[in-house]
Amino acid sequence: MNNSSANLCNQPQSTNMLSPEQLKFLERAIELSQQGMDSGNGGPFGCVVVQNGKIVGEGNNRVTSTNDPTAHAEVVAIREACKKLNTFQLNDCDIYTSCEPCPMCLGAIYWARPRSVIYANTREEAAAIEFDDDFIYSEINAAIGDRKIPFHHHPNKKAKAVFEAWHKWSGRKKY
Amino acid sequence: MNNSSANLCNQPQSTNMLSPEQLKFLERAIELSQQGMDSGNGGPFGCVVVQNGKIVGEGNNRVTSTNDPTAHAEVVAIREACKKLNTFQLNDCDIYTSCEPCPMCLGAIYWARPRSVIYANTREEAAAIEFDDDFIYSEINAAIGDRKIPFHHHPNKKAKAVFEAWHKWSGRKKY
Repeated sequence: MNNSSANLCNQPQSTNMLSPEQLKFLERAIELSQQGMDSGNGGPFGCVVVQNGKIVGEGNNRVTSTNDPTAHAEVVAIREACKKLNTFQLNDCDIYTSCEPCPMCLGAIYWARPRSVIYANTREEAAAIEFDDDFIYSEINAAIGDRKIPFHHHPNKKAKAVFEAWHKWSGRKKY
Repeated sequence: MNNSSANLCNQPQSTNMLSPEQLKFLERAIELSQQGMDSGNGGPFGCVVVQNGKIVGEGNNRVTSTNDPTAHAEVVAIREACKKLNTFQLNDCDIYTSCEPCPMCLGAIYWARPRSVIYANTREEAAAIEFDDDFIYSEINAAIGDRKIPFHHHPNKKAKAVFEAWHKWSGRKKY
């Protein structure tokens, strides 16, 4: 599987128009992307989480200002929304983001399980201004032995035993 | 592209034996996975970040105890290591994790850019105890219109203008 085939699978779907309220939320995410850049927080990305017509979480990229490579706009907004709503699940929320989520943020979104995601710029447009999203998408599909960062699999009986203990444990809290 | 083809692309590579020191780090990650489960922090996952033979960051899963869907072991360990080392890049570090990283953590790892990743359990073993890693890997490769969480692309001139401003800005800090 190569980069171009991965891209081919991910062409944006054509969608309906946004309502004025939805456009307002998308433009708030874009405004945050501008503010984050202007204030030196990090890259030009912003995000809001919306529940029942109200913003419950906001974020802009803060990687370079906080020395946290995970502080992307979506991760920051999801963490803030979850803290505010006292939950680790955003089932009845929508996420508006100024750019198509990178693989890390896509994963974070799937774990938070919102209702939908609305985005403006694409991963290809991010790649054009030198953000590695598209490279990481292609690495995910590379055979593990061909990845630019070497991944080594070392099965371990103790690790497997922890998984088995979890699975047998009736008190486990699923997420 | 379907789930089985994604799996086929990602078979673990065969690797050499770990040194006694490397095994110690992997087993520390496994120990953290057990401790995190036993203390009710979250799922059975642990991770350490190692630089020059020393652990500089540790983490276990804390999703359910902190209401943070992004608090996976790898994200927690990467954030701790970056804070300690005062950097957003872990170029000379190795990451030892009790389980193959999920897509979110894989993305976090690529943004942190460590030297290598060593893991014990696989994504398929995680799926067998009801963690959605494998599902999310397949969703990444689904056409956006076929995803279980709807993604909607709405190009916006203001969003594009922010990207262009970033690209033209000589003071931008790359990451």
